[in-house]
Amino acid sequence: MTTDPFDTGPTGTFRALCRDYPDGTVFRGADGFRSLWGPVFYRGRANGTARLLVIGQDPAQTEAVTRRCLSGQAGRRVQGFVEKLGYTRRYLMVNAFLYGIYNQSMALPHLLDPAIQAYRDAWLLAALAPGKVETVVTFGTPAFNAWTAFTATPAGAAASAGVLFHKALHPTADKPGGPITRQDLLDNWNVALQFLHPQVQKPDVKKPLVPYGSDFTPAELPEIPARDLSFGFPAWMRSTDFWASMSPTPGTERANISVEVP
Amino acid sequence: MTTDPFDTGPTGTFRALCRDYPDGTVFRGADGFRSLWGPVFYRGRANGTARLLVIGQDPAQTEAVTRRCLSGQAGRRVQGFVEKLGYTRRYLMVNAFLYGIYNQSMALPHLLDPAIQAYRDAWLLAALAPGKVETVVTFGTPAFNAWTAFTATPAGAAASAGVLFHKALHPTADKPGGPITRQDLLDNWNVALQFLHPQVQKPDVKKPLVPYGSDFTPAELPEIPARDLSFGFPAWMRSTDFWASMSPTPGTERANISVEVP
Repeated sequence: MTTDPFDTGPTGTFRALCRDYPDGTVFRGADGFRSLWGPVFYRGRANGTARLLVIGQDPAQTEAVTRRCLSGQAGRRVQGFVEKLGYTRRYLMVNAFLYGIYNQSMALPHLLDPAIQAYRDAWLLAALAPGKVETVVTFGTPAFNAWTAFTATPAGAAASAGVLFHKALHPTADKPGGPITRQDLLDNWNVALQFLHPQVQKPDVKKPLVPYGSDFTPAELPEIPARDLSFGFPAWMRSTDFWASMSPTPGTERANISVEVP
Repeated sequence: MTTDPFDTGPTGTFRALCRDYPDGTVFRGADGFRSLWGPVFYRGRANGTARLLVIGQDPAQTEAVTRRCLSGQAGRRVQGFVEKLGYTRRYLMVNAFLYGIYNQSMALPHLLDPAIQAYRDAWLLAALAPGKVETVVTFGTPAFNAWTAFTATPAGAAASAGVLFHKALHPTADKPGGPITRQDLLDNWNVALQFLHPQVQKPDVKKPLVPYGSDFTPAELPEIPARDLSFGFPAWMRSTDFWASMSPTPGTERANISVEVP
């Protein structure tokens, strides 16, 4: 017998946002978006109980299967980060973009398109409205710019007043051959942790800060909690990486998804 | 903007059954089951409002992605059937087996294994307990045998007393080269409809019975309603068939799944 708690789903305003959302006429294929995979709305507590709000960039193929943000390689890195702050449960993660991106140079300029921003801001406002969020972390430049644009609106400025905020590098910013090394990424995340940890007031679990070393340890890549997915998702989807791949045409709007059972 | 109602999930006893369920030690790979894909619990109203209970056989690759029973080719055929009875909304569909089968001759003999039957009976009892179900239809021999075994238990006999019941052929019983033709299947379903339709007391929509002809018409293969899946599933997953396939090793426990975006 397996006993797996599961996400019982969004409530209130969050539920309405999962029912009424922009489609492929807003997130256009011609603009670099892969709306064909469907929207991916959130991971965590979409019910008004979140203390931490995380903003990521856009969903990839893993998230198109789990239908939750940040549940693949980037997601497990972020999960380790938020658990170092003591947020093991009461967090909400959303993305700057509702749909996956197949061409960043085409898609990123649309970050502040009115319809894209309005919908994203509705999520951010819903997250902050209950007055429970004390910490906001953005991962990557589009997420930071999304937060900045939100807080520049009157409603966003009011809702975010007094919230603890920090921006961090994208969880997979350390691309092979790129300018950012694994150590650069972890140093950046350590700066974020050292800024945030002493100021977190209401973590789910109080624990001393343990910074990253020169690489992610296995304990720093925890599984995605069962309670963050819907019912019935097999455990290996939460505890292993790279089980979903694009085939045979990555790089185009219509990329297929292949799920490899471990 | 898209407005798609979605399944807000199981409640009460149904919710507990989606949290606590038999795993691969009960539905063993060595017995022909593909527990690696995860359990698939239901489609429809798992909240006590169902008037119709449908029992199918086991989930295939499409259902492993949508995480809902009867949502592929067989599911769209069944959807057409239940809508002919006027049940457009208040139905609950479950399977005789919680996990997919890769080898029927190995798996079907386990239909009445105590742990398999006990869990399935708990679903059937939960479906009937609110006293709302007036009609039960089984599709295929394993489903019929599952229902028969349930109604032979004291609790099942009590819960099913007075319920209108009919057994029908499996929705894809018309295998190419097999003994059952498309016409045989549709004739069998017409018998079921002609028996059930006059006796249905509380359909969602009252309408005259239109029997099947010599083949399924497009209208008789309706899309899977958005309200039957969780949020964010793209519409083409509900309105097209065969977008999920097994690769590269169908016929074994570890078959991978390939999702082709249309």
